[in-house]
Amino acid sequence: MYPVIRHPQEEQEARDKLAALEEKFGKKPNIVIFLLDDVGWMDTGFTGGGIAVGNATPTMDQLANEGLLLTSAYSTPSCSPTRATIHTGQNPLHHGILRPPVYGESGGLDGAVTMPSILQKLGYVTQGVGKWHMGENKGSLPQNVGYDDYRGFLGVSDMYTEWRDVYFNPEVALSPERFAMMEKEQFNHNDVHCTPQDKEKCQDVRLIDLDYIKDLDEEWMQYSINFIRRMKDSDKPFFLYHGTRGCHFDNYPSDKWAGKSRARTVYSDCMVQMDYVLAQLVETLQETGQLENTLIFLTSDNGPECEVPPHGRTPFRGCKGSSWEGGVRVPTFAYWKGVIKPRRSEGLFDLADLFNTAISIAGKPGKEVTEFIPKDRYVDGVDQVGLLLADNGQSARRSRPYTMNQYFSAMRVDEFKYIWTAELQSGVVQRGYWGGFSGPIFVESGGAILFNLYTNPQEDVSIGVRHVPMLVPVMSTAADYMKELIKYPPQFKIGFISNNPPVYDLLPQAKDKLERFEREGVGRYPRPQ
Amino acid sequence: MYPVIRHPQEEQEARDKLAALEEKFGKKPNIVIFLLDDVGWMDTGFTGGGIAVGNATPTMDQLANEGLLLTSAYSTPSCSPTRATIHTGQNPLHHGILRPPVYGESGGLDGAVTMPSILQKLGYVTQGVGKWHMGENKGSLPQNVGYDDYRGFLGVSDMYTEWRDVYFNPEVALSPERFAMMEKEQFNHNDVHCTPQDKEKCQDVRLIDLDYIKDLDEEWMQYSINFIRRMKDSDKPFFLYHGTRGCHFDNYPSDKWAGKSRARTVYSDCMVQMDYVLAQLVETLQETGQLENTLIFLTSDNGPECEVPPHGRTPFRGCKGSSWEGGVRVPTFAYWKGVIKPRRSEGLFDLADLFNTAISIAGKPGKEVTEFIPKDRYVDGVDQVGLLLADNGQSARRSRPYTMNQYFSAMRVDEFKYIWTAELQSGVVQRGYWGGFSGPIFVESGGAILFNLYTNPQEDVSIGVRHVPMLVPVMSTAADYMKELIKYPPQFKIGFISNNPPVYDLLPQAKDKLERFEREGVGRYPRPQ
Repeated sequence: MYPVIRHPQEEQEARDKLAALEEKFGKKPNIVIFLLDDVGWMDTGFTGGGIAVGNATPTMDQLANEGLLLTSAYSTPSCSPTRATIHTGQNPLHHGILRPPVYGESGGLDGAVTMPSILQKLGYVTQGVGKWHMGENKGSLPQNVGYDDYRGFLGVSDMYTEWRDVYFNPEVALSPERFAMMEKEQFNHNDVHCTPQDKEKCQDVRLIDLDYIKDLDEEWMQYSINFIRRMKDSDKPFFLYHGTRGCHFDNYPSDKWAGKSRARTVYSDCMVQMDYVLAQLVETLQETGQLENTLIFLTSDNGPECEVPPHGRTPFRGCKGSSWEGGVRVPTFAYWKGVIKPRRSEGLFDLADLFNTAISIAGKPGKEVTEFIPKDRYVDGVDQVGLLLADNGQSARRSRPYTMNQYFSAMRVDEFKYIWTAELQSGVVQRGYWGGFSGPIFVESGGAILFNLYTNPQEDVSIGVRHVPMLVPVMSTAADYMKELIKYPPQFKIGFISNNPPVYDLLPQAKDKLERFEREGVGRYPRPQ
Repeated sequence: MYPVIRHPQEEQEARDKLAALEEKFGKKPNIVIFLLDDVGWMDTGFTGGGIAVGNATPTMDQLANEGLLLTSAYSTPSCSPTRATIHTGQNPLHHGILRPPVYGESGGLDGAVTMPSILQKLGYVTQGVGKWHMGENKGSLPQNVGYDDYRGFLGVSDMYTEWRDVYFNPEVALSPERFAMMEKEQFNHNDVHCTPQDKEKCQDVRLIDLDYIKDLDEEWMQYSINFIRRMKDSDKPFFLYHGTRGCHFDNYPSDKWAGKSRARTVYSDCMVQMDYVLAQLVETLQETGQLENTLIFLTSDNGPECEVPPHGRTPFRGCKGSSWEGGVRVPTFAYWKGVIKPRRSEGLFDLADLFNTAISIAGKPGKEVTEFIPKDRYVDGVDQVGLLLADNGQSARRSRPYTMNQYFSAMRVDEFKYIWTAELQSGVVQRGYWGGFSGPIFVESGGAILFNLYTNPQEDVSIGVRHVPMLVPVMSTAADYMKELIKYPPQFKIGFISNNPPVYDLLPQAKDKLERFEREGVGRYPRPQ
């Protein structure tokens, strides 16, 4: 539904490669999405960090250099919204998960048409491993939205242990009464195993306490390795969604990894471990003869978290929780041995595109793709099979809208980014760093803030007034998307935390029509009873 | 003289490689220093920029990935100080060129013991091409400080044309009187050719006007190519110092390059051209069979210039002209086909180390090296032959002092940087960006500002108070260097522009002794008569 720039020749080239591969392997290709948590641009070596910041990432660097390094790949500003975007192909305003649900808040993927559920229909074995965080109500459980099997936790890293930790929360950890209160909080406190045999709930594997949280990534790695091994001789292709715990706070490295990074910090130790985890998965694919039939896509769910150390390492403005580039430009590559030609591309890629692209790769183009992509809701993703697989593939999108909490905040067209709603600082309760969780100050601009992301990736020199020839088409692209938001109204499943209406007055005529979206109380922070 | 961390095994490994190579080629290896101008961390792809900011640098990226990518390589805060540091192995406080000489200011390399002059003694053919900017008085001319041949301009890019440009300086360009005044300014207005046959002056090749400035990098590239070709069958090794004009402002791309970058800006066009220039030199080395006997070292003379567009693209704090990381951490790699193993290292490298390392590679270790490294002055460089050539070579330095104008401003030990003199902002005359030329505000801290450059490369969270176990050794390393400054007093050839004494009161006892350095008027901006 989102405007697509077609490159028919490149798409054909991609199709030819896929057809040759299918002939060789006798089945469709496998797809692995390796999703890091809170990992920012300067955490990985292939984007200028890595060993420069004390954590070598040789595997990631090598795969990025031997694959397609995407320098304009975009997540949403935070965790759950991005995960849901990957799974639904929708921007947060359309899938409705505007911020992460915490401590068992209701709502999630229920009711969504998901990538794994479509891949199931296309004959794929669908395996999920690691962080879920897209709802733990029944309808949102992994086995009920397309996974044949899921192993991981359902919420967010820190909620299992932060209240157990005398260092971070002595007021709770050392108070028997408060500690007992937390133990009774209505969310699943365990690493769980979910299968379609039990649609009601997932099976507890082990309670996540301060001991076990250290081992989660190792456990999950082993689970994915075993899955890949099992698929060795399968006549079905597989989809593996591996969402790491690392390197979301809080990082507790296991004995094996403590102090193993050059920086010796828990965060850098974690980065080094993540590189190792990826290396093991790739090695297993290689050993089992599946590497050349597997697309590996690595990315992060958002920019770095700046409210806890290491305070975010990014060359961009802003951090996780904002729609400045620092919040949403994520280290990303696609690697496919023998299929993807080593190169770099600044072509726009929205993680929503993974939805369409995975289905395009897994299905018969033009038939099953159009059949399975839902038509009763707005899909923001576009098929990027040409960009990924053609030797000189270009992006199928020329623009990309930014959302932040309940706001449609900015629009990028080519290298130009037009901003009308920005987070100026986390000034209410936090000094210094910017992120959307601790009292951000949102402002609406006068309407001509335009950045050139090539010349000014830091977004601090507005050139709108002198670049009206680009400002006008970028504004009109934003207005076009606003019209789509009128046709397909924003959903607010989780996270409409403000009493104010969303700022949809970019277009005067849109404002009136969009006022109906200000539905009272919808999505208002419902604490579990 | 600077404290060295010896790695004898690695040094031996490097020596063995060099000996095998000398046997194979029958001569010492060639050394190419490819020095970019004002190119920052995010301008090159191998450090996370490149195509991400609209200018692909495929050759640089490839050589960096196939060579040794140095993530902690340090220049000085600006142009001429860095060039003189490379040539003398001395920090600016020791070689005395504290800031760039402009419009024919007196002073420069005269009196220095330079790398090319030593390489000449070691049997090298020494060729310099491109930007000189280390003095144009007789004693500082290239042919009088070690070059067999030099082709380039003697000053700084913009001084040849900025006053001719009606866009930048209409007040001069359109005033016949002022224009005539500029034409008479006493500096050489030409692209020149310098040879030892004429020690008095260089020969004018062509006046640098708004037409010709566009072609300089192409002309110089051709000059270097021709030199490399001529050296094909020489029984002597060569040293080639190729200092590009690009991408210092002002950038005027030739017809061939205008609009050729993805960003289509003059700066990005220049970056794309620089990548091409490097590619041509490498190709010529390959064609002539010399590539495997040539060390290629690419770096930049300082961080990005932030007072003119594109306003600097760096993940670090600060820009050219400051000793924040943004001013001095420069994109750097060493490439040597078949000799240097592809890898990344965060080992500390000061561009002063090029002096010792080049002599070490060119000479007989332990004999000629100790013979030629001067002993009557302080040499800040250390021999990094092990870091560069051993397969897992580590840095020979554990610390690195920072200088800024007349200040000894900071000290790095491992990942910790201790700062006592910092530029807070260019607040006097400039909003926003930070650089040391347009009215920087220097402050002296209370003495416990310590940054961890791994966890906080942006240098905005001081962790000194909580990391005293590291603060103390870093402070004592700074004090040790202060003592060296007492033994080898700072020189102020160019750039002691303040009436204040330099801030040498880190150590109380140093302050008294260092007051004698406050020599009246020395180096005070002497305008040509």
